[in-house]
Amino acid sequence: MSRIAYVNGRYLPHRRASVHVEDRGFQFADAVYEVIAVRGGALIDEELHLKRLHRSLGELRIAAPMSDAALKSVIREVLRRNGVADGALYLQISRGAARRDFPFPPGIEPTLVVTAQRRRGPSTKQVEEGVGVVTLPDIRWRRPDIKSVALLPNLLGKQQAREAGAFEAWLVDRDGNVTEGTSSNAWIVTAAGEVVTRQADTSILNGVTRLGLIGLLAREGLTLVERPFSVAEAKTAREAFLTSSTNFILPVVTIDGAPIGNGYPGSVVRRLRQAYEGHVAAQGAA
Amino acid sequence: MSRIAYVNGRYLPHRRASVHVEDRGFQFADAVYEVIAVRGGALIDEELHLKRLHRSLGELRIAAPMSDAALKSVIREVLRRNGVADGALYLQISRGAARRDFPFPPGIEPTLVVTAQRRRGPSTKQVEEGVGVVTLPDIRWRRPDIKSVALLPNLLGKQQAREAGAFEAWLVDRDGNVTEGTSSNAWIVTAAGEVVTRQADTSILNGVTRLGLIGLLAREGLTLVERPFSVAEAKTAREAFLTSSTNFILPVVTIDGAPIGNGYPGSVVRRLRQAYEGHVAAQGAA
Repeated sequence: MSRIAYVNGRYLPHRRASVHVEDRGFQFADAVYEVIAVRGGALIDEELHLKRLHRSLGELRIAAPMSDAALKSVIREVLRRNGVADGALYLQISRGAARRDFPFPPGIEPTLVVTAQRRRGPSTKQVEEGVGVVTLPDIRWRRPDIKSVALLPNLLGKQQAREAGAFEAWLVDRDGNVTEGTSSNAWIVTAAGEVVTRQADTSILNGVTRLGLIGLLAREGLTLVERPFSVAEAKTAREAFLTSSTNFILPVVTIDGAPIGNGYPGSVVRRLRQAYEGHVAAQGAA
Repeated sequence: MSRIAYVNGRYLPHRRASVHVEDRGFQFADAVYEVIAVRGGALIDEELHLKRLHRSLGELRIAAPMSDAALKSVIREVLRRNGVADGALYLQISRGAARRDFPFPPGIEPTLVVTAQRRRGPSTKQVEEGVGVVTLPDIRWRRPDIKSVALLPNLLGKQQAREAGAFEAWLVDRDGNVTEGTSSNAWIVTAAGEVVTRQADTSILNGVTRLGLIGLLAREGLTLVERPFSVAEAKTAREAFLTSSTNFILPVVTIDGAPIGNGYPGSVVRRLRQAYEGHVAAQGAA
């Protein structure tokens, strides 16, 4: 838990860090966010996160609360005050607080909240033995490419997954194709050895780890194919895995209880995890 | 603007009324709400609002923060402290504040916020001359029957309507049928004089004004048909109107700029508005 949180210009003790009851983030989900992994004091792929943040803000026409340079200073100060060198940085920007009314209020100042956590990454067991996913209908709104806090369907899916003994839920569109997980992107490796993930259109969030991994595939001599894949194809894939900013890459070894391949993490996902850890370590050393 | 807001057991000056930055209402849209019209000191159809509140809470498995009797006391105290006899009561219940993580946190206490506004109802002009709507794709999640604060698509639709010079947006499903407005239910009157509104399945919010009006139709000698209707049917309807807790009943006289009927409020909607005002006045007098 963050000991100090940044809220609209002030560094506050965590328990006193608050936003107004008429903040549009609280009343309307009128807000966007980013979660950035921190390793060895470095913010992993910070520029990609800020780029995506600006895209989300632009799509919702929410003003940036400050320049990127100023935001980077705040982020670093929050990490410093919380003594977080390995964990996660959370930032949220809402349209601001105003008398409750649906349309964008004129002359409103955005709300910025920044917190930091010493977050456990995935367990060694999860990395080495893999995790299970269940499949659920994708009931989200049609713009999950915007990283908004309208996460109610996501958390309901995650809860359902956990109650089914799974780590994550993979969401399935009306055509029977997997879109993504509730807080991660979904990948498979085909019998031909191709690495497949859905193309980043408006149906998924374009994960920063997804982008980072795509950048590593060619170097690893692997072929990327961006296309939808069905639940049936995923269940008979050679390997499956998920990516997210806090978990990096995790093998998926069961889908709806059915084992993928021999039920153990395959060689491709193990190689990619190692390559991605190199990508992370290189930034920490910088 | 509410001068005094109730937040988790305390009556606070409005400007100091806040929730924690890790409230799940702020970070996840993990919250539900109700808006209740207040007229002549009476809470209009309060029991229907509380019944719907419990349904929303139950669907999301959020605990009620207190008994209905206690909640009614808080609601009345907020009205009293704000001197609101004509306006609107807003209440929001989130799952509570906890370290950010998607699944339901164990042992969490729900957050309750109650505010009151002296709200202008619709203008005389809007009531007498009607309003315009535009049609937009319904991009919301698939459970708008739950009155959650995941309202981002709703407010984007409302904003788009206002920028197009319209009062409201009617949302259209993949089959070309109107679901409802961004914050109101949608109705038409057919050439045969039937009053048509979409059936209350998971595709719409079952409005309290919708329910109240349904109760009045038979008394007015009008036939109700609950079924989907298309944009094309709406544009050639004899009359069209919308209902909401804060606007009661408003004639819709244009859809996407095209006039409905002769472009003036019809006889059915004028009769229904009058009947509904009687329904409201009866409660204020009680």
